[in-house]
Amino acid sequence: METAQLTKLALRIRHDILTMTTTAGSGHPTSSLSAVELMTVLFFKYLRYDLSDPDNPGNDRVIFSKGHASPLYYALYAASGVIENKELLKYRTFDSVLEGHPTERFKYTEAATGSLGQGLSVGLGEALAIRMNYDLGLKIQEENKSKDLKSSIVNLTSLPRVYVLAGDGEVAEGSVWEAAASASFQGVYNLILIVDVNRLGQSGPTMYGGEGVRVFASRFEAFGWRVLTVENGNNLEQVDRAFEDTFKGTTFKGRPTVILAKTKKGAGISFLADLPGWHGKPLSKDELPKAIAELGAVDLKFKGKVEKPLVSGKGKAERGKSTSPLTLDPLPYPSDKPVATRKAFGNALLRLGKADPSLVVIDGDVKNSTYTEFFGTAFPDRFFELYIAEQNMTGVAVGFSARGYHPVVSSFACFLTRAADQIRMAAFSGANIIFNGSHAGVSIGEDGPSQMGLEDLALFRTVRGSTVLYPSDALSTERLTEDACRTGGICYIRTSRPETPILYARSDAFPVGGSKTHHSAQKELVTVVAAGITLHEALKAQKELEKEKVGIRVIDCYSVKPIDRKSLVLAAVETKGLIVVEDHYPEGGLGEAVASALAGTSKIPLVHLAVTKTPRSGTSAELLAFEGIDAAGILKTVRTLTRKE
Amino acid sequence: METAQLTKLALRIRHDILTMTTTAGSGHPTSSLSAVELMTVLFFKYLRYDLSDPDNPGNDRVIFSKGHASPLYYALYAASGVIENKELLKYRTFDSVLEGHPTERFKYTEAATGSLGQGLSVGLGEALAIRMNYDLGLKIQEENKSKDLKSSIVNLTSLPRVYVLAGDGEVAEGSVWEAAASASFQGVYNLILIVDVNRLGQSGPTMYGGEGVRVFASRFEAFGWRVLTVENGNNLEQVDRAFEDTFKGTTFKGRPTVILAKTKKGAGISFLADLPGWHGKPLSKDELPKAIAELGAVDLKFKGKVEKPLVSGKGKAERGKSTSPLTLDPLPYPSDKPVATRKAFGNALLRLGKADPSLVVIDGDVKNSTYTEFFGTAFPDRFFELYIAEQNMTGVAVGFSARGYHPVVSSFACFLTRAADQIRMAAFSGANIIFNGSHAGVSIGEDGPSQMGLEDLALFRTVRGSTVLYPSDALSTERLTEDACRTGGICYIRTSRPETPILYARSDAFPVGGSKTHHSAQKELVTVVAAGITLHEALKAQKELEKEKVGIRVIDCYSVKPIDRKSLVLAAVETKGLIVVEDHYPEGGLGEAVASALAGTSKIPLVHLAVTKTPRSGTSAELLAFEGIDAAGILKTVRTLTRKE
Repeated sequence: METAQLTKLALRIRHDILTMTTTAGSGHPTSSLSAVELMTVLFFKYLRYDLSDPDNPGNDRVIFSKGHASPLYYALYAASGVIENKELLKYRTFDSVLEGHPTERFKYTEAATGSLGQGLSVGLGEALAIRMNYDLGLKIQEENKSKDLKSSIVNLTSLPRVYVLAGDGEVAEGSVWEAAASASFQGVYNLILIVDVNRLGQSGPTMYGGEGVRVFASRFEAFGWRVLTVENGNNLEQVDRAFEDTFKGTTFKGRPTVILAKTKKGAGISFLADLPGWHGKPLSKDELPKAIAELGAVDLKFKGKVEKPLVSGKGKAERGKSTSPLTLDPLPYPSDKPVATRKAFGNALLRLGKADPSLVVIDGDVKNSTYTEFFGTAFPDRFFELYIAEQNMTGVAVGFSARGYHPVVSSFACFLTRAADQIRMAAFSGANIIFNGSHAGVSIGEDGPSQMGLEDLALFRTVRGSTVLYPSDALSTERLTEDACRTGGICYIRTSRPETPILYARSDAFPVGGSKTHHSAQKELVTVVAAGITLHEALKAQKELEKEKVGIRVIDCYSVKPIDRKSLVLAAVETKGLIVVEDHYPEGGLGEAVASALAGTSKIPLVHLAVTKTPRSGTSAELLAFEGIDAAGILKTVRTLTRKE
Repeated sequence: METAQLTKLALRIRHDILTMTTTAGSGHPTSSLSAVELMTVLFFKYLRYDLSDPDNPGNDRVIFSKGHASPLYYALYAASGVIENKELLKYRTFDSVLEGHPTERFKYTEAATGSLGQGLSVGLGEALAIRMNYDLGLKIQEENKSKDLKSSIVNLTSLPRVYVLAGDGEVAEGSVWEAAASASFQGVYNLILIVDVNRLGQSGPTMYGGEGVRVFASRFEAFGWRVLTVENGNNLEQVDRAFEDTFKGTTFKGRPTVILAKTKKGAGISFLADLPGWHGKPLSKDELPKAIAELGAVDLKFKGKVEKPLVSGKGKAERGKSTSPLTLDPLPYPSDKPVATRKAFGNALLRLGKADPSLVVIDGDVKNSTYTEFFGTAFPDRFFELYIAEQNMTGVAVGFSARGYHPVVSSFACFLTRAADQIRMAAFSGANIIFNGSHAGVSIGEDGPSQMGLEDLALFRTVRGSTVLYPSDALSTERLTEDACRTGGICYIRTSRPETPILYARSDAFPVGGSKTHHSAQKELVTVVAAGITLHEALKAQKELEKEKVGIRVIDCYSVKPIDRKSLVLAAVETKGLIVVEDHYPEGGLGEAVASALAGTSKIPLVHLAVTKTPRSGTSAELLAFEGIDAAGILKTVRTLTRKE
């Protein structure tokens, strides 16, 4: 489109931003107005996107990392003709998909944003996924010795791009710099970051105010990016030139590009532009006409055209669309040899990687401890070493998921807390991600509390729509990893460091929401509910009590969420006391899941053994004993309960 | 000390690192060996620290951000003469304070480390605290028009310094760059970061391997730091020169300094140095003598001397040591005017700031929403705008706490999840921090799910030794903020966005662990347990039911952790059903805290109303209704329960 047309569109978009926020009575018009020119030029001159087919793999991708600029976001789609004006005016109302910050409910949203500084990692994930499809295409072509170079693959210049819009305030978030370092290291030249440097944050000027462009230019340069600056980001021609430059030159190959544009918050309206005190404030119904009058003649029917992609592209992965069934391969676990569940998880990923080409695995420099290195060695193209940066690992996974892959993010359970905000947001993006947290609990031993996942069950249970699994032996780990591959949403698998005995048979199934009951030969007086490492302690106690002719029921509660309420209620009916024992803090984990499931149904004693003293370095056995969550602690509790009778 | 002596010390330290890890059978000798020269020169030539008085405000501070280099850490203190050799050999054993990663149990530890990339923020906090004491000293002096410039205050060259040792792998963590940007912006020239670039991570080479020094130099330069590089960080003279340079020049004023040193992992031992596959592996008992032999003659009795500080310094703040009592000042809340609890929290901070000079407040560009701006305007010297970087905010708070201040970290509840790992670690540092999360729950309305704290109660309940408070009106907010100031450890106060009616009297007390019961005139059939926003919904339901001559008991469970078990048990005895209603996900919040407290004691029905559907934009009332946690939802549940009878 020509500048005159873009000017008309920018006017219309400004009009829509102002009216929709005033109608809503809330929202962020000024944060939207600053980026009007940046996004108008992008959408209606450079973007390649089939609005009738958001899943088209040839589409470029746009992520509003500054999610509060949602009025601009929706106004762009309105100007493209895919949102009706009356729909726009329902912005932020209960029945509208046009939420205050973009979520998956709006079909063009790549990822939910609104927690600042997260969009670049998601963009990196999408860019990597797109490039991977392309690389795969190249390889397939090479293998087939195809002669038709041009038609069979997406070529370099038409490689779909990922555009991320960020504000200058959010550049203070470390997650931006994790993604920046990672993007240049990964050489994703199809990732374009646009920073709307409007100098004003929520409560005052941003850290560098009007100097942001200069400061960020040297930082992005040092982080390996190609830097383009725009002196006046509210000038269509200047913005146009910057986008044109993103396609120029050969030096940029392998480097992501950032456009740093100096803009004015509230640009286009004299009594808003560059003025403090206007963050997140819509104009009043009295102020609105004054602002609209300043815009002059606005053609509200004028629409822009978003160009379709040149090539449709191929290679979109689809989660769960395995090329071969997830068969019950023979699993190499002799029944008499202990295996750590973390290792079995590594084995499972390797096996499932063969069956499911949509699986990609992301590591943060712990692959030799979590055993994702097995997958990494077998499938280097689908294995991403993203180094020690858990926020970026998670954001990248959201991006992979958006492009149809099924990413696995694996680290120590405790270090996943680093990405708690990204995990929380991933749920609102509708992302499908398997998280694996290894080295859970005090059972890791000598490394001490900093390395112990003691709150990870709570973290993942509190994720919207999540599934939380906690296997105890190698065979259940393998099966639960299969389950995770079949399960959508955020799925967490907790694994342990120590080697644990094989408990189950190859043919045993471990459905999500189920449990396994280990019965005693004797009449079962009480039930011990456990999972993972403590299950083995419970079984030791059961064995010990057998000698004394005392029976206890032991439930392997491998599915922490959803939990097998039926079996728990049955145990509460059939036995006279419940002991939940877990290698986790008392709050938010297995114990509270059980207490919650049984709440109000039974008056039988429920004793909860968990990590209640500050853990420290020591042997695994010493620490389990210190916390009273070992076999001895269970025995003691069983004896106290049974003595009562 | 002279080079010859430092050489002798370095040999002894190497010997100790190797023997203590082999004796322990675990630990990270090679990650320790790379930094021997860096730390030996620092400790025995430049550090000013009174080992007999860790609290001396004149002391420099040392933080091992690469906490896995704990063998080196402890070996330095052994070489200083404050740890006996036999104690050193108890490294990583259950009864030793020499844990696998440093924790507060070792008296010289400033902050627990082991989750990488956190130390620099803590160092920044300590540097700010030290500088604040100095600035205050300057001001006091100015006010007193003292003539004795040199004796009354800590002067510039003797201003205590904070040294942080980091590894090259952890520089990938975004938190490092949050701290780096913040440190230069704050102009803390007494902060010195030392990066041990040993090129090898846990599972392979670091992102930039041997190029780390070059890459990081340009990045730290761009982030506003003075950069000093050391070509061979295992050469004592080269390291010495770098530390000497940290004291030189005038250009560094206002800039923090980074020493980037290229080192060899496992330096000093031929079969370890610069070789992969040795991360976190002690030598076997067979390998150890070979390594020791390579060291040659080692004088295990040779001790180094750590110089004492030149000036003792003044101004250490002490938490809770208020200059005036926290009196029950008249609080300006007319009983008929609704006030948001977030605003009352702001008022409380302002009031308490006058009484307690140890209070410092840290904001992340939301001060006008959380109302910490009241404090900021009144006490600009104790208010830190750290912009949108929650991890750094939390790390800085840990640093302030280590220097005796009582920091308040305030943001939206949902954005505190960004710092979950730092919060988890703060507990192991023994830090005293008040966290305030505002805009909790779906009641925020139109901004949508990204801005709603729905897992914050779970997050803070799972912090070791934490206190979790959730006020419902302005008066209880004021009192609970006072409680928080008196409470040690990690204390969380959850506040709400909407204005809520005044419920309590000025004279009401709200002790931690208590609750308030709102009785009905009628016989109470069931009990509704609520807190914060839902308490008002419960009281509305109570009022509605009064009209129908149906009585319900309403418990304001403002202390979520510890919870008032006694009142809950009493309610379970005296009424015939419990309904817990909370504006939070069902997991890990008030409902599970109640279920946990009552587990096994009562068979009366316990119904849990919480946020069970994916929330969205809408009005506060619509969203509370959507989730069934409003008065209507409570009424419906009460009717179902009472109908059963």
